[in-house]
Amino acid sequence: MVNLNPTSSFSVAIRLQLPNRAGMLANVTQAIAEVGGNLGQITLNEQTHTHTTREISVDASSSEHAEKIVDAVKAVPDIQVLNVHDRTFSLHQGGKISIVGKIPLNTQADLAMAYTPGVGRICKAIAEDPEQVYQLTIKQNTVAIVTDGSAVLGLGNLGASGALPVMEGKAMLFKNFANLDAFPICLATQDTEEIIQTVKNIAPVFGGINLEDISAPRCFEIEDRLHEEIDIPVFHDDQNGTAIVTLAALFNSLKLVNKSLADVRITINGAGAAGVAISRLLRQAGAGQILLCDSQGIVSKDRQNLTSQKQEFASPESGSLADAVNRSDVFIGVSVPGVLTPEMVKTMTSDAIVLAMANPIPEIQPELVSADVAVMATGRSDYPNQINNVLAFPGVFRGALDSRASKITATMCLEAANAIASLISPSHLHRDNVIPSVFDERVVTAVAAAVRQAARKEGIAGF
Amino acid sequence: MVNLNPTSSFSVAIRLQLPNRAGMLANVTQAIAEVGGNLGQITLNEQTHTHTTREISVDASSSEHAEKIVDAVKAVPDIQVLNVHDRTFSLHQGGKISIVGKIPLNTQADLAMAYTPGVGRICKAIAEDPEQVYQLTIKQNTVAIVTDGSAVLGLGNLGASGALPVMEGKAMLFKNFANLDAFPICLATQDTEEIIQTVKNIAPVFGGINLEDISAPRCFEIEDRLHEEIDIPVFHDDQNGTAIVTLAALFNSLKLVNKSLADVRITINGAGAAGVAISRLLRQAGAGQILLCDSQGIVSKDRQNLTSQKQEFASPESGSLADAVNRSDVFIGVSVPGVLTPEMVKTMTSDAIVLAMANPIPEIQPELVSADVAVMATGRSDYPNQINNVLAFPGVFRGALDSRASKITATMCLEAANAIASLISPSHLHRDNVIPSVFDERVVTAVAAAVRQAARKEGIAGF
Repeated sequence: MVNLNPTSSFSVAIRLQLPNRAGMLANVTQAIAEVGGNLGQITLNEQTHTHTTREISVDASSSEHAEKIVDAVKAVPDIQVLNVHDRTFSLHQGGKISIVGKIPLNTQADLAMAYTPGVGRICKAIAEDPEQVYQLTIKQNTVAIVTDGSAVLGLGNLGASGALPVMEGKAMLFKNFANLDAFPICLATQDTEEIIQTVKNIAPVFGGINLEDISAPRCFEIEDRLHEEIDIPVFHDDQNGTAIVTLAALFNSLKLVNKSLADVRITINGAGAAGVAISRLLRQAGAGQILLCDSQGIVSKDRQNLTSQKQEFASPESGSLADAVNRSDVFIGVSVPGVLTPEMVKTMTSDAIVLAMANPIPEIQPELVSADVAVMATGRSDYPNQINNVLAFPGVFRGALDSRASKITATMCLEAANAIASLISPSHLHRDNVIPSVFDERVVTAVAAAVRQAARKEGIAGF
Repeated sequence: MVNLNPTSSFSVAIRLQLPNRAGMLANVTQAIAEVGGNLGQITLNEQTHTHTTREISVDASSSEHAEKIVDAVKAVPDIQVLNVHDRTFSLHQGGKISIVGKIPLNTQADLAMAYTPGVGRICKAIAEDPEQVYQLTIKQNTVAIVTDGSAVLGLGNLGASGALPVMEGKAMLFKNFANLDAFPICLATQDTEEIIQTVKNIAPVFGGINLEDISAPRCFEIEDRLHEEIDIPVFHDDQNGTAIVTLAALFNSLKLVNKSLADVRITINGAGAAGVAISRLLRQAGAGQILLCDSQGIVSKDRQNLTSQKQEFASPESGSLADAVNRSDVFIGVSVPGVLTPEMVKTMTSDAIVLAMANPIPEIQPELVSADVAVMATGRSDYPNQINNVLAFPGVFRGALDSRASKITATMCLEAANAIASLISPSHLHRDNVIPSVFDERVVTAVAAAVRQAARKEGIAGF
């Protein structure tokens, strides 16, 4: 088992009462340190001349580790643990988003304008000129986050209810990063046709559709069909979003090692939604040699029963993942923890680039190969070069909705990747800084502008 | 044409520059008064020694009237109209609701708890124990407002986009009156089976379904089927909501005239969603004699091709609306403007009760019959006794969600009506006060408590 760092996702808040004398808190923090807990906020809640009450937040590396920390605190003499709560669970109580009115409703006059009878004039105006729905309703700024819960994070098929916390989180990200109003639609069906029909039926309220955590290969048909059959942009974040941020990191990594996309040998491990979409976008960007691998090794022309998506990238080469990685310049992982070994990395060309994005545990731990590669990136926030979709989807939708684009195209995705990469200036580009931080406020603006411009150039902008 | 009072739903804001000398503003207000405009807010925006700039809000009775008012202001010598905007349209720009996060997202630690990887723990907890979706997500407090746009207000079949402003307004009402999070689902289909299937597919996110503005007879089957086929409460406001508030007003009106529900002859004009639902709830409450009328007169047993809903109330009597009203103690209108004449009212029993709820123009103008009836109520806010669904649906859903009721039943609706009626104490009950104001803060609490209690009594509460 890979030894993970403590993280706030396994964080506990321990409320305790200590005798009010020197050294008591030190005993507690010492006990926490000894079992590897990472101290966060320490709040003083109450103080009398005999006792103090404090709440201590501690990051752990797992639920078991959190329990061990709490036990260690309980074992400190003379202190009393009053209460322990899991901070992540506490934060999720009651859900994470809320729907609010934008105007007051305090008087009969307010009601008469926002609701009946005044609202009837607005309804008639839209019925007479359907374009007005973009001015007079929430549609212009509203995104549906649609999932069937079939591929929730790396956790598999948890179903609609199990997916909802992720979709609520995503709605928060849309608001926080791009001021978009996004609402979770978690479907009680995993049937391709029913999903397509349901999304078409609910589309009128929304300015765009963000598909999320729908398993391959159904996600491909669902995205393709909706792309054709509705007049608002459709984006599958696990495909398009991941492809954009991966390409952005790769653009900058290649600059750093002075290699060209057309010349490098690229192994992509994982042939699901993300792997296929990355392969497509890389090819669109001009990649010369892509070896797509799945759990059986290289997706090669020899193999039988390949899905049509895998056929697109079937290679004349065949062999194992190790065979693909051998002599590769680039490894891109969107698969499972630990499948890339240090020995395999040593067979890559000099100045190798490894983007190991399995979440939360990457295909290879960065510390195992940092001496052997030119660039190492993961999906994690506790290592340099975090490749995070949050860099892409808020700006993509901001740009698409602001230009009233009817679709999201490969060109838009390519331009979005370029826009993200270009935020790292040549003087700031180095092996631990190939991609901007998710908190870099320039990102959304740059991505949105690139998408708007691409929409206009392609003639699919609404104005 | 009935002469309507000016209302804020036809309100204009006129921005104008006046010479800064005595009497100028008086000339403007005089001009507005002469054409019947109703002055609202007057704001002083700027003042120099030569000029003042003001914005004047004026209520009109129609769009044409608003134009006439603006023309009258423009004709005032020496003043200059800088800008005119329709206040109702301005208020609707960009829509009326917004989706916000409930917790901060400013640091990597925030992200790690609200989104990946921390959120994965929440997803797994729900997948393992589906009941947890009520604690750990928005479901417990979230309502879908579902329409197909087929019967928008009194305006007819405006379609999904044309219905959206009403649904946004309704979402605001849910928030404002019951602190519920409601989201509009406007469907691109008017097919009964597709509507049912779509609602079933999107149900996992929601704690309840509020059907809205779906035309009869499809609304009956949709409600019945969803009532059977999903495990969260379903409420069709145009049916159940209207029935609750009507019954509440009727309970108090009957107290006032000392008649009993079992004994009175009741004419209900309008056999659509509202009329049928009112008839059903009145019968459930013990009404003895109901004459349901549609555009062809009394729904009588003689008539052919009655819908199954009309068959439920088919009467041995036949005849016109006038025949039904003759000797009736109660007239309930959920139909069209002006169909009840003063002559017809004169044929009712003494102490007649008229609830004329066609919107925005009632079946009869109150001033025409106030001397001939004991109680007169309408759906309008500018007359006494406003029968408004806002009195019912927020509290009904608050109570249903708080008790985790699996359904909304006739008993709950009956208890909700009783709860609303009981807020008018005997000493406050009079002909102009048979129902509480929509701004009476006791209403939601009382209705929610009644619904919770009914749910427990019926054994359909979740806990």
